[in-house]
Amino acid sequence: MTTKIGFLLYPNMTQLDFTGPYEVLSRMPGAEVYLAAMSLDPIKADTGLRFLPDTLLEDCPLLDVLCVPGGPHVDDWFDNAEIIDFLKKQGQQAKYVTSVCTGSLILGAAGLLDGYRAATHWTSLEYLKPFGAIPDRARVVVDRNRITGGGVTAGIDFAFTVVAELQGEAVAKSIQLALEYNPAAPFKGGHPDAAEPAIVDAVLAAMDARLAKRRRNTEGFVSS
Amino acid sequence: MTTKIGFLLYPNMTQLDFTGPYEVLSRMPGAEVYLAAMSLDPIKADTGLRFLPDTLLEDCPLLDVLCVPGGPHVDDWFDNAEIIDFLKKQGQQAKYVTSVCTGSLILGAAGLLDGYRAATHWTSLEYLKPFGAIPDRARVVVDRNRITGGGVTAGIDFAFTVVAELQGEAVAKSIQLALEYNPAAPFKGGHPDAAEPAIVDAVLAAMDARLAKRRRNTEGFVSS
Repeated sequence: MTTKIGFLLYPNMTQLDFTGPYEVLSRMPGAEVYLAAMSLDPIKADTGLRFLPDTLLEDCPLLDVLCVPGGPHVDDWFDNAEIIDFLKKQGQQAKYVTSVCTGSLILGAAGLLDGYRAATHWTSLEYLKPFGAIPDRARVVVDRNRITGGGVTAGIDFAFTVVAELQGEAVAKSIQLALEYNPAAPFKGGHPDAAEPAIVDAVLAAMDARLAKRRRNTEGFVSS
Repeated sequence: MTTKIGFLLYPNMTQLDFTGPYEVLSRMPGAEVYLAAMSLDPIKADTGLRFLPDTLLEDCPLLDVLCVPGGPHVDDWFDNAEIIDFLKKQGQQAKYVTSVCTGSLILGAAGLLDGYRAATHWTSLEYLKPFGAIPDRARVVVDRNRITGGGVTAGIDFAFTVVAELQGEAVAKSIQLALEYNPAAPFKGGHPDAAEPAIVDAVLAAMDARLAKRRRNTEGFVSS
């Protein structure tokens, strides 16, 4: 059984939103992974890492699993016709429509989360609302055929959930053992509910300009 | 304060061994990250993902943190003079000599783990011994200035440990919150101590030929 899994890649994305689930999903028996982008030039992540897509959006086959990773500048793509058209076309027929981190906001801009519960990076939950989505603080949210993960590293937990949905728990557990996924964070506080207030404030302050821009881009959003 | 962090990249490596810690370490204030390889051509990971190095081994500046990711074919590099010479040169002066997953076996082949406790992927712990290293089943092992992580996903826990060593817990916690690193594995069994025996057996069976080759390559290892 073949499962066609496609990731949308775009400039300034957060590479771990993609590379975490990629490592898990590409090891699923029968997985055929497509890395789809607007051009075949190297994609440069927000942190500088450059990696290569392997198919143009227009050449990407119809997918069983569509996955949109996030990044600090997802707002730049809300009105990009090429990306939005790709997501609408794939999203209306894919078996699962998924995202990691703020990738859910791009799914939202494509009209694919209207009426669905969805996760995103903890700083952006409220920005799901203008798209008709219902923000959910869980690390991985499954609502009918929408599976969305929270911020960045949630993409790994998300991916094991997707594998289990597609092929069952035994396959997910085998990949988990092969990747030694027995996480042990050296510190607590990886979520605002558990973090020290001073650290929450520092992270929000560092993202202030970006979040103000996101507020403008989502509150003023008009579906194309 | 600038911290020069260099990853050794090579064909058939496991991309998440590198991209996990890269996401964490590249966000550390003052981090200057170097992706060093034998050529500047795209590196193709064992799963197929292609990404780009940015410096040749011979052009890489002296590093504060040297990091060697692993992969299923690390044995191919034990007697590669270019890689081993690079590691010896960097390793004798770096502030921290580090690895993720089976990257520790390449450090071992370069003579950099003799007398040190070290982690590696759970299937390869015994293969550390021919290099004089003392296998340690912990997820992250710190022995003097050697910091080594266990299999694949342990690289994320490893990286937060490195950040805390370099710049303290508050910086590590800020990055952890920004990356929402509050892991929640959907299933137990990401380590053989906790996995179902049938799943341990299946994972070992799938790696049988590769591990037999590793046994030959490590037991017969003669330092160059």
